[in-house]
Order: sequence, then C-alpha cells, then structure tokens
Amino acid sequence: MSDTRGLLIVLSGPSGVGKGTVRAAIFKNNIYNYVYSVSATTRQMRPGEVDGVDYYFTSREEFEELIEEDALLEHAEYVGNYYGTPIRAIEDNLSKGHDVFLEIEVQGAMKVRERMPDGIFIFLAPPNLNELESRITGRGTDNQEIIYERMQKAREEIDMMKHYDYVVVNDEVDCAVNKVNGIIQSEHLKVSRVVDQIKLQIHNYFQKGE
Amino acid sequence: MSDTRGLLIVLSGPSGVGKGTVRAAIFKNNIYNYVYSVSATTRQMRPGEVDGVDYYFTSREEFEELIEEDALLEHAEYVGNYYGTPIRAIEDNLSKGHDVFLEIEVQGAMKVRERMPDGIFIFLAPPNLNELESRITGRGTDNQEIIYERMQKAREEIDMMKHYDYVVVNDEVDCAVNKVNGIIQSEHLKVSRVVDQIKLQIHNYFQKGE
Repeated sequence: MSDTRGLLIVLSGPSGVGKGTVRAAIFKNNIYNYVYSVSATTRQMRPGEVDGVDYYFTSREEFEELIEEDALLEHAEYVGNYYGTPIRAIEDNLSKGHDVFLEIEVQGAMKVRERMPDGIFIFLAPPNLNELESRITGRGTDNQEIIYERMQKAREEIDMMKHYDYVVVNDEVDCAVNKVNGIIQSEHLKVSRVVDQIKLQIHNYFQKGE
Repeated sequence: MSDTRGLLIVLSGPSGVGKGTVRAAIFKNNIYNYVYSVSATTRQMRPGEVDGVDYYFTSREEFEELIEEDALLEHAEYVGNYYGTPIRAIEDNLSKGHDVFLEIEVQGAMKVRERMPDGIFIFLAPPNLNELESRITGRGTDNQEIIYERMQKAREEIDMMKHYDYVVVNDEVDCAVNKVNGIIQSEHLKVSRVVDQIKLQIHNYFQKGE
C-alpha cells in the first residue's frame, strides 16, 4: 500500500540553526529515497559545484524569464544574485510518487506554503536561544549590536513557527535526522493518503467472491 | 522541550487483524514508557491474571455504578459480561504527561473519539482481505457462511477507517510496532503541542538581556 503521489517536504528554520547540516546528513544515506529539489541561481558556479546537482546555474535573462513564466515556487535576491525554486521538477517528481525535499529559509518557505499547502512544513529550531547566540557569535567577531539584531531577527523567524506543521529541535544532528524521517514516514500513514487504495482493495475482494 | 500533557493513543482495527499481538510487542520493550490503559470487566479472573494489571475485576453492581457515574469512556457487553474503559486513570496519567495507550475494538474506539477527540486514532489494517480471510478461517472450522459473514463485518469495520487519523498495515509485527511508535513520536513534534513552551523560552531570553 503506497501513495500514488509523493510528499513535498520543506525543511526550514532561522539562519544559524543548522538546516544545511541536517539536510546533508539526511541525504548522506537517504534511506527513503527523497529527491532533493535543486534551486536555480544566477550566481557564479564555484569550484567543485555541478550544474543540475548543486544548483541550476542560469543567466540573469533566463532567470527573469522563469519569473515571468511563473515557473518558480518562490525566488529572492541576495547580494545581487537571484535564487529560486523551479516548480516543474518538483511537480514531475511528486506525480511519479517520489518525496521531494526542499531546504529553504523562512521567508521562502512561507511563499511555498501559499502555493503548495499540502506540503509537510518542518521548522528546525535551536535547542535554546543562548545556544543560537553562541553559534552566531562563534561565526565571527561581530559586535554586540549586530548580535542583538541577529537575535531579534531570530525571534521574528521563530515566531513564524506557528505557520509550520512540525518543530524539530536541532540539539543533535542524528537525532534531528531521525525525527525528520519519522515525521515523513508517519505522514505517509495518514488515513487521507491511503483510504482510496484500501477501498479499491475491498471492492476487488468482494467482486472476486461474487 | 517536552509536552506538558500526554497523548491518548488508540489502537484499533477489525477483529482478527492482530491488535493484541502488536500491542503486546509494543509493551514488551516499551521504550517510550507508554502507560497501558487497563479495562474494567465483570468476567471471572482467569489463572495467571492479575487484578489492576490485566483488568480491573469488578462485580456487576460496581460496574453498573461506574456506568451510572459516567466514569467509563466507553463500555460494552459481550457474552453476558461487561467490559469498559475507566476515564479516571487515563486522565490522571495524561495530566502527568504520560502517553496512555488503549487497545480497543472499532465500535469502542468510535465512542472514545467522541469523548476524547484529541486522541491519536490508529487503525490496524490487514495486509489484504485474502490474508484476513485465511486468518479467520485458520482459527477454527467455521463454515463458509460464517466466514462470509465475518468478512462482511470486516468490510464494515474497515469502512470505519475513515474516522481514524492513521492506518498501519499489519504485514509484519515488528514493522507495525515501528510505525506505531513513529506516529506517536511525530505527533509530539506537532507545532500546536510545543509552540507555547518555545514562546516562553523566547520571552525568558529577551528578559534576561534587558
């Protein structure tokens, strides 16, 4: 009994929480064969990066065409470069029954939610804010004011948690990975996702006997 | 970050599906420390059974008093004996933060749902109806008519699945146990269950800094 359509899984959370680390750990083994949603970007390819694996590298013109065609689930501009999530590959994979995994910052996730409300939205949270502060501080030699600003931003981002389905506290990477996998596998067991197939089975059984 | 209140978990499904086996396997290790909800009954204690562990053994008068006092979440009569689920112990354990586990037939589960709609209702389903038929046939020397009646009843019971939250197919006991545990642990990660605690944490952090 398997679903016909895959699930869209969106992993998000405040910056500094370790989204990338958890996502990388999930895809290291990838025991459930999730398909990773590759983003499009206009930034330069870096050494070691592969087009279509790390990103779809596009020109500014191509990217603006994608925006124009409404072919992106969400997009944003950082430091003069565009980043966005192409819908097409996601839809193709979902309709083939593959679970598609998206790792994205909080604002982007909220835009995805509007377009794909059936997705499973998982918020990765810091074990506590003191921990988040020390991670942010540990990154460099920012002054107190900048740290305070970042913490205020984290507060705002954590406040977005209420728009998500699940919260996973990133206290330990392995533990967070197990929780994310557990959520996805349990979502597949929801009655609404399997009820049609079971009805069909019952129908077939009683037809056989008649 | 743990819930303040425990979860009520209701495992149910058609007769012959193996609810008792799955429940026993869960409680053999009981790694998540679920509290098993002990039923009350008026039937005679059998050798090896312990009062308060297997059942609360009560007289007919005591049981009817419990019904009178609305102290049972649900109750039913089988072969001249009453069986029922006392609310009190469940409420006590939930309020202490323990997850309470209830294994019950389909009709009883639906009555529990009315009174405790926040429970997690898990439907244990047969791998397929042919399998269920062979289990029912394997139990004794029932004639075709009785088997057909039982299968019709199973069809009705499976039709109740739509009122549940999750479906776990009992193809292999260990596999079903893992799925049930996975569902319960993921339910604890739902935003609605943890949002208040995280808000409190944020409040405390920013108070500290002021």
